[in-house]
Amino acid sequence: MASRSNTSQARLDRLSTALDSGTLADVKRMLNGLPAADVAHLLESSPPKFRHILWQMVELENEGDVINELGDELRAHFLSDMDAAEVAQITEHLQDDDLADILQQLPDTITQEVLNAMDHRDRARLEQVMTYPDDTAGGLMSSDTITIRAPLTLDVVLRYLRRHTAIPAMTDNLFVVNRNDQFIGLLPLNTLLVSDPSATVREMMITDVAPIPAEMPDSEVARLFERNDWVSAPVVDDDGRLLGRITIDDVVDVIREDADHSLTSMAGLTEDMDTFAPVFHTATRRAVWLGINLVTAFVAASVINVFQDTIEKVVALAVLMPIVASMGGIAGTQTLTVMVRGMALGQISKNNSSWLLHREVSVGILNGLLWAAVVAVAASMWFDDWSLGLIIGSAIIINLITAAATGAALPLLLKRMRIDPALAGGVVLTTVTDVVGFLSFLGLATWFYA
Amino acid sequence: MASRSNTSQARLDRLSTALDSGTLADVKRMLNGLPAADVAHLLESSPPKFRHILWQMVELENEGDVINELGDELRAHFLSDMDAAEVAQITEHLQDDDLADILQQLPDTITQEVLNAMDHRDRARLEQVMTYPDDTAGGLMSSDTITIRAPLTLDVVLRYLRRHTAIPAMTDNLFVVNRNDQFIGLLPLNTLLVSDPSATVREMMITDVAPIPAEMPDSEVARLFERNDWVSAPVVDDDGRLLGRITIDDVVDVIREDADHSLTSMAGLTEDMDTFAPVFHTATRRAVWLGINLVTAFVAASVINVFQDTIEKVVALAVLMPIVASMGGIAGTQTLTVMVRGMALGQISKNNSSWLLHREVSVGILNGLLWAAVVAVAASMWFDDWSLGLIIGSAIIINLITAAATGAALPLLLKRMRIDPALAGGVVLTTVTDVVGFLSFLGLATWFYA
Repeated sequence: MASRSNTSQARLDRLSTALDSGTLADVKRMLNGLPAADVAHLLESSPPKFRHILWQMVELENEGDVINELGDELRAHFLSDMDAAEVAQITEHLQDDDLADILQQLPDTITQEVLNAMDHRDRARLEQVMTYPDDTAGGLMSSDTITIRAPLTLDVVLRYLRRHTAIPAMTDNLFVVNRNDQFIGLLPLNTLLVSDPSATVREMMITDVAPIPAEMPDSEVARLFERNDWVSAPVVDDDGRLLGRITIDDVVDVIREDADHSLTSMAGLTEDMDTFAPVFHTATRRAVWLGINLVTAFVAASVINVFQDTIEKVVALAVLMPIVASMGGIAGTQTLTVMVRGMALGQISKNNSSWLLHREVSVGILNGLLWAAVVAVAASMWFDDWSLGLIIGSAIIINLITAAATGAALPLLLKRMRIDPALAGGVVLTTVTDVVGFLSFLGLATWFYA
Repeated sequence: MASRSNTSQARLDRLSTALDSGTLADVKRMLNGLPAADVAHLLESSPPKFRHILWQMVELENEGDVINELGDELRAHFLSDMDAAEVAQITEHLQDDDLADILQQLPDTITQEVLNAMDHRDRARLEQVMTYPDDTAGGLMSSDTITIRAPLTLDVVLRYLRRHTAIPAMTDNLFVVNRNDQFIGLLPLNTLLVSDPSATVREMMITDVAPIPAEMPDSEVARLFERNDWVSAPVVDDDGRLLGRITIDDVVDVIREDADHSLTSMAGLTEDMDTFAPVFHTATRRAVWLGINLVTAFVAASVINVFQDTIEKVVALAVLMPIVASMGGIAGTQTLTVMVRGMALGQISKNNSSWLLHREVSVGILNGLLWAAVVAVAASMWFDDWSLGLIIGSAIIINLITAAATGAALPLLLKRMRIDPALAGGVVLTTVTDVVGFLSFLGLATWFYA
């Protein structure tokens, strides 16, 4: 039996073949037969030229869904070509949270026009979602909840549901509210299906689940979903009034983006970057990062500059000095990665960070001693100079301990200063390990050979 | 209203306070009142000593659930202290896929003993899950499916469900099978709730969803769930027979691990690492990575060694050479990160990789020219030597283009050789950018000043 993936992959392959052979009508038909997420994936996996041909073939009625599935950078790119009327037209059937995300990417004047084009009730609902930043629970929620009252019997609830033509996707629980619209409990559909229909909602509902406050940061929401294996969860305002619900599909995006953030930030990139961005766009973004790192490279160079006389006397120092700096950089990056990841997973707090700092410094001492010995022997034999070995060994111990301490303490410090440790950590860290590496090695050498 | 998170955080804080003030009975009561995932998170966020005190307080009946929620490395640590009878006892209520994961971490003799201690039917089901590697659909599935037959009316299905005391968590669809147990369609619970009870399953079921073959790699399964917003999906064998189902909670773990893999591998760490591993354990693991990088540092040093005479003549070369190597390393790492991430997201294929290679080289040329000019002017003014500026500028252009080409081509090559690009890429890349950086800069200088 063909799997969905095989089928989907086969369709994508056939699409490529059709594009190569130029039967555009076929391509268009195939493209619009794919799920929106597959079309979005295809656009994200295509170089710009091919991407624009594909986008022009997407039918108007599918554009909103595809836009919704795209990453931020690419989505902004396509939206920038549209006016308010077009945006309003293609997005009118989207859920509130998705539409709010899209509107928040648009210039304010266009957002206002889109809002004006909507009917009063839709606009009021949307404006409520948009009062919350998109990285909070409020920004993730949609308002397609089914609410019931506690005194009803399950039989009445079942008959009430049967009056619907469809139940929103990812509905695993009905939300029980009181007269004031305050959330008081959950009735799982599974409970509804297996319980005695004459029982009341009050008897069968789950009340020990606390709803999510709308201001909760999205990464904390993701952690709650992960730890509790939720499919959907209610969102409430400060007074406990039900505002909407968050579903696992939106949470999965948050998890993916949070995990991506650490990876891309450590290389000075953004987690919503477009893999196939055009040359000029890519070059300008990357140039900034290279510029920042160039400044730090000049700082390191100016340290070496101080020791010109010593290097002139013992050229072997110039040969060996990158080893000291590089070992420090590698060791420090390992520590930094452990810290950044631990922070992203919510594992690191005031209680345990001093233990981590101690652990890292101890590891730095142990590995410093080990590799200092190896490098010392290798350098001594290479240049037939045991004092050179002793000097580089000492420098490596100093630099590996510095790297460990910096790699562990720096992210804690940056976080307290509200600077992203994943983004700034690497730059500061390698500056420290370069400077300390060159300074300790060349400094000790100057003291010895002078 | 207190949120679940606030409550949960408050409980964790109270736990810390209780531990500090030494009222162990309180701690034990609180700890065993927490959800298993919270206990696991607490253990993962604790230094070893504290962790063992906590673990001893976990009641036997909760141990299996907590073990199930732990990361691989920490789980293996706790399991290593248990014998087969204990493992069998604490895990007997777990789902097949979870139990299979745990058994696959144990030594074969213990696994066999645990299997022998199970009743015949449980063992047969578990052995079926265990025939599939744990990174495939088969390894992710559990057998707690509810299956129905197509000729039934919805009313019969509703009555059949009502005979259950509970429906498995994350059940959003019932699976429709034929006489041979082959999967033929899905009946969403939502459809069941809103449709006319006299309709048949055959009329209402969804048939255009292809089931997941048991051999599918888990990252592909994750992509299907993400793109289609599934909560659960059926798994079938080669003959289309229903084996079980995969639920979104297990898929979320795969997504998190896959995203974590790129981050940790690029620093020579593993995605299942224990943030609070003890000193000696951490030191030995990190030592290997430092050793590998030391070898590459010596390769770079031996390149510099060739140019000793030139450096002796122009010491400014020693001052400036780290700038050339470092700019190459930074630019190359950016390209490598884009490639590794694109591969993890399934965006990069044969069709588009040559475009990416071209784009990266073009970006390398543009940024090479830009920063070569800046560095050339800065170096010329610093050392009052315009030829030195010209030399370093040329070396930077060469190295940034090399970095771009290597960063883009290397992961494709490594993947074809079945070597993990995230793990090996960084080491090879920085070796290339160091060697080419030193070689081009010192080589050009030797040619000019000799």
